[in-house]
Amino acid sequence: MDPECCYLFKGLGAEKQSPIKSLVAEIPMRRDERIFTEGEEAATLYVIKEGAAELMTRDDEGFELPIAILRKAGDCFGVAALLPPRPYSLSARCVKEGALWTLPREALLEMMRADFELGCMMMTNLAGHFLDRLKESRQELRVHFRTLLRSTHT
Amino acid sequence: MDPECCYLFKGLGAEKQSPIKSLVAEIPMRRDERIFTEGEEAATLYVIKEGAAELMTRDDEGFELPIAILRKAGDCFGVAALLPPRPYSLSARCVKEGALWTLPREALLEMMRADFELGCMMMTNLAGHFLDRLKESRQELRVHFRTLLRSTHT
Repeated sequence: MDPECCYLFKGLGAEKQSPIKSLVAEIPMRRDERIFTEGEEAATLYVIKEGAAELMTRDDEGFELPIAILRKAGDCFGVAALLPPRPYSLSARCVKEGALWTLPREALLEMMRADFELGCMMMTNLAGHFLDRLKESRQELRVHFRTLLRSTHT
Repeated sequence: MDPECCYLFKGLGAEKQSPIKSLVAEIPMRRDERIFTEGEEAATLYVIKEGAAELMTRDDEGFELPIAILRKAGDCFGVAALLPPRPYSLSARCVKEGALWTLPREALLEMMRADFELGCMMMTNLAGHFLDRLKESRQELRVHFRTLLRSTHT
């Protein structure tokens, strides 16, 4: 895996990216396979090598609503692994078969403790990514709000 | 300001919190005063000492929709200051007069560069906070989605 493909590891430079590569394993991803479920212990960070994964969240009635589909090499999910003791905040399943790169939580956290500059850069990348998602989510709320206003006024 | 009151500085320990205190200035916050506007350069991080601030986002027609009201001592906003070159992602105005603690961006970033462990802990706190907001925002979308479904089926 080239760490530069994933937003978490961007801009670190070759020297800091090098220990990341040694943590990566590769596993197959089979169509319809569930990768993890919301609420489970976040033991692993996943990065797409090839194929596609859908992220979902469960509503009060247990129905799983789609949140996003990740299909680019380097797209990652399960980032709650970087924020213990938080469990996975979404569920993930394979929607197009391929392969995943996996990075175990404990080794990632140990690497960040051994090099806090690396840790600070990765967590800055993560916070920036979340802020962008938050802006998108607020934008969606605005659109729904407007649709709702229209549907109740017609 | 006791840094422990703000989620960004929680769990750092007295020694790491000490340089933060030296960055803090205090300014009054007057009713209806605009503190900053979405899109402006994020030069300052704000923490509520007393009073209340409303956060807002602008829709395509320039109308400002409320996102949240912060009213507890230690509630902070303008955290884009920690993620240059991002501008403020929301606007803020005073809705109950009081006082704000301010921390200048450059001094905060310099402090994190001088102590990457401190930086890593702060950015981890920030990412965790964003993940919690993201979950709330998704929850709101689910509620709107259901309301919308109901309103189009009745």
